[in-house]
Amino acid sequence: MSAHDKPILVFQTDFTYAEGAVSSMYGVVKRVDRELEIFDGTHYIPRYDAWSASYRLYQSLPFWPEGTIYVSVVDPGVGTPRRACMAKTASGHIVVTPDNGALTHLARHIGITEVREISDEHRYPGTRGTSVFHGRDVFGYTAALLASGQISWEEVGPTYPVDQIVCLPMPEPALADGVLTGIVDIIDPNFGNAWTNIPLELFDKAGIAYGDVLRVVVHHGDELVLDERMPLVRTFGEVGKGELLAYTNELMNVSFTMNQASIVERYGIGFGGDWTVTFER
Amino acid sequence: MSAHDKPILVFQTDFTYAEGAVSSMYGVVKRVDRELEIFDGTHYIPRYDAWSASYRLYQSLPFWPEGTIYVSVVDPGVGTPRRACMAKTASGHIVVTPDNGALTHLARHIGITEVREISDEHRYPGTRGTSVFHGRDVFGYTAALLASGQISWEEVGPTYPVDQIVCLPMPEPALADGVLTGIVDIIDPNFGNAWTNIPLELFDKAGIAYGDVLRVVVHHGDELVLDERMPLVRTFGEVGKGELLAYTNELMNVSFTMNQASIVERYGIGFGGDWTVTFER
Amino acid sequence: MSAHDKPILVFQTDFTYAEGAVSSMYGVVKRVDRELEIFDGTHYIPRYDAWSASYRLYQSLPFWPEGTIYVSVVDPGVGTPRRACMAKTASGHIVVTPDNGALTHLARHIGITEVREISDEHRYPGTRGTSVFHGRDVFGYTAALLASGQISWEEVGPTYPVDQIVCLPMPEPALADGVLTGIVDIIDPNFGNAWTNIPLELFDKAGIAYGDVLRVVVHHGDELVLDERMPLVRTFGEVGKGELLAYTNELMNVSFTMNQASIVERYGIGFGGDWTVTFER
Repeated sequence: MSAHDKPILVFQTDFTYAEGAVSSMYGVVKRVDRELEIFDGTHYIPRYDAWSASYRLYQSLPFWPEGTIYVSVVDPGVGTPRRACMAKTASGHIVVTPDNGALTHLARHIGITEVREISDEHRYPGTRGTSVFHGRDVFGYTAALLASGQISWEEVGPTYPVDQIVCLPMPEPALADGVLTGIVDIIDPNFGNAWTNIPLELFDKAGIAYGDVLRVVVHHGDELVLDERMPLVRTFGEVGKGELLAYTNELMNVSFTMNQASIVERYGIGFGGDWTVTFER
Repeated sequence: MSAHDKPILVFQTDFTYAEGAVSSMYGVVKRVDRELEIFDGTHYIPRYDAWSASYRLYQSLPFWPEGTIYVSVVDPGVGTPRRACMAKTASGHIVVTPDNGALTHLARHIGITEVREISDEHRYPGTRGTSVFHGRDVFGYTAALLASGQISWEEVGPTYPVDQIVCLPMPEPALADGVLTGIVDIIDPNFGNAWTNIPLELFDKAGIAYGDVLRVVVHHGDELVLDERMPLVRTFGEVGKGELLAYTNELMNVSFTMNQASIVERYGIGFGGDWTVTFER
Repeated sequence: MSAHDKPILVFQTDFTYAEGAVSSMYGVVKRVDRELEIFDGTHYIPRYDAWSASYRLYQSLPFWPEGTIYVSVVDPGVGTPRRACMAKTASGHIVVTPDNGALTHLARHIGITEVREISDEHRYPGTRGTSVFHGRDVFGYTAALLASGQISWEEVGPTYPVDQIVCLPMPEPALADGVLTGIVDIIDPNFGNAWTNIPLELFDKAGIAYGDVLRVVVHHGDELVLDERMPLVRTFGEVGKGELLAYTNELMNVSFTMNQASIVERYGIGFGGDWTVTFER
C-alpha cells in the first residue's frame, strides 16, 4: 500500500494552537505510521461546544475524498463514561470522536451507516496514568492505527445501534402560511455572518426569489434579537457596505449578514436550537 | 509524474482558521488530486484587505520553489464582475487570485509576465447555486486542476494584457536633499514593527550607514503621527529594551520599531499609500 | 533515500501566523529539498519567552518519531552573539534553536547528548544583509540541509560541552514533612489550567491518593496568589462545573484547575521559576 492509498487524517479540536497539544497529538500519528498525511480542520472550535464540532464536520467533511478520517476532539467529558466512537457516514467518510453530540449534523444531513465504540485497548502505550488527553492517547492514536492498516474497522470495538448516537435537539426547518421558520445553526465568527438551517429550496417552494425583500426576525428563546427587512441576493456586493442582506451560503442554506460588517456583533446573535429565525415577504 | 513533480499549493486568505472554510477548501484540492501538497501561507490577512494580501505575496512567494502556485483569497467582491485570474511572475511562480489589487507588490517588485482570466467553466461541480465561496469553488479548485496537470495553463481562460491588472496606488521611495521619503508599506501585527518601502541601498546612496542616528517622521495624510530620533542598527539587541531603532528587515527594506515592544501600538501606526515616512540625519 | 526516510521538520516560534514569516521560512525548506515534510508545532509561543519555548519542546518533541528535527525560534537576541545551536537529545531527536534557555526542560527531563554551534557558513544565500530573521535564513535553512542529507551533523559547526548550554534556573520539586513543593511550570493558555513540575509519583511517595482533598497554595515570589482546598481526581468530570480540582496532566505531573473554567484567569496565575506551589493534605 503506497502512502497515497492510506486515508488522510483531518483533525478538529477546541485546543487552539497556543500550546503543545496539537503537536504531540500529531507526533503520535507519525510514530504509528510515518506515511500518514495530517491536516488541520480547525483547532478553534469554541471550548466544550459539541454543537459547533458537529456543524464544522457537516460543513467540511463532505468536501474531502471518500475514506478520509476526521478526528474531532471537543471533549469536556474526557475520562468519564461517555462513549468514544468511530462512525461511518453515508458519504464514505469516517469520524472518530467522543459520542457527545458531535455527530448530530452528519446524522441528520448525511447519514451514519455504522458506529463502533472505541475500546480502551487501543490506547497509546505508556499513557495509562493520565485521563485528560484522549485526543493524543485514544482518538488520534486509534485513527492512525486504522488509517495505517494496523487495525481494521472491525477490530475497533463493539458496534452499537446508530440510533443510540447522542444527537442534540435540532428543530426542522418549516414552511407554513408563507413564513419560513428555522434556527441560526451557526455563526461565522470571522466575517460575522449568521447561517440558518433553511435550505434555498424551501425558499423556492415558498415562491421567494432573488431580489425579493424579506422580513427577518430572530428570537433567542422568547427574547426578540433582530427584526429587519433585507433583500435576498446572490452575493454581498449587490448591497452597499454595511447594509443588510440575505444570501445562499456555501452549503446552500439561506444566511443573513451585513456587507463587510458583522451582523453577529451588531445584533448580538448566537446560535443553536433556541435561536429561532423566520423569513417572510 | 510523481507527487513531488507537481507544484506545491500555498493558500493565503482572510478566512482565519476559526471555522470550517479552510478545511473544505483543502478537501476539494485533495478530491481533485490526492498527491497535491498544500501549505498554509496565512489565513489571517486582515478582512477585505487586498493591500495586505499583496504585501504578503511579495514577502513570501519568492522564497518558495519555482512553479509553486500561491492561491490568495481576499475577496470582498466575490460574485461581482471583478476578474478572477491566474498570473505568472518573472520569478517563475503562479498566483491565483481575484484581480483586485492583490498583485500590486508582485507587479512592482518581481514582475508579472502573463495573466489569464479564470473562466466560470472551471468551477467545483455541484456548487453553482452559491456565489460566496470562490476560494473553495473556483480559486482552490482551478489551482488544483492546474497543479495536477488535469488542465493546462492555456486552458484556464482568455489572457489579458498585464497592464490591465488592478494595481493599488503606491508611491515610489525617493531621495532628495538628503531626505528619504517612502511609505509604511506594512506592519508586523505580532511584534509591532513598521516596515517601509525604502530599500537599504537608497540609504547607502544617501550616505547613511549603520550607527547613524536618524530623524524619523510619520504622517497619516496630513496628520503627524511620529517624530523621533533613533539609530540605524543591524539588529534589535544593539539598543536597550523598549528603545527606538531603525533596521534592515527581511526584505532588505529599512524598518523601525522598539526593542521588544510595539511601535505600532505605542504610536498608532497604520500602513498603506497614505502613510508617509521620512528619514534624515 | 525516499521521502519518508528523511526526518520530519517541526517548527515552533513566537511569530504567530498573522503575517508572511512562517510561509517564507517554510518556502526556504522546500527550496532546499522538495521532499521534506514540515509540521507546525505552534507559532504562538509568547513573544520572546524562552521558558515557554523550552516547555513546549518538553511537552511535544518526545511524541514525534526518533530523528525528528524540531526547529524552535524564539529569539529576542537575534543577530547578537548568542549561540545558534543544534542539540541531540537522549530520546534520539534533534533541536535547532538559539541557545538561550530553550533547551532547559529537555536537558533536565530527557537529556542532551551532544550540541554543536551553527556556524554562519550555513545561511540561506542572498540574505547576508539582514540580521533579523534567522528562523528563515539560518535555523530553518540549516535544519533543511541536515534533514535532506546535504550536510551531515558533523559539518554543522564546532561541538561544545553540553554543560555550557544555557539553562534557566529551575527549582527541583521536593517532598518534606508531607508537603510537596514545586513550581507552576506552565499554564495552558486556552483551557486555563496550571501545570506544576511535581510528578504524580512524588504524590504516591507522600501517600496521597486519588480522592484525597488537598490544600493548594500558590505564591508569586512572596505574594500569596491562591490558597484553596480541592480534591485530587482522575478527570475533570468528577467535580461540578466551575469547581476546583487537582489532576494528573498529560506529562504525568500534577496540575490544578476548575472544571470548564480558567483557574489562571480567576486567580491571576503565571508560570516560571518564581511561581511556587505547595500541596498538602
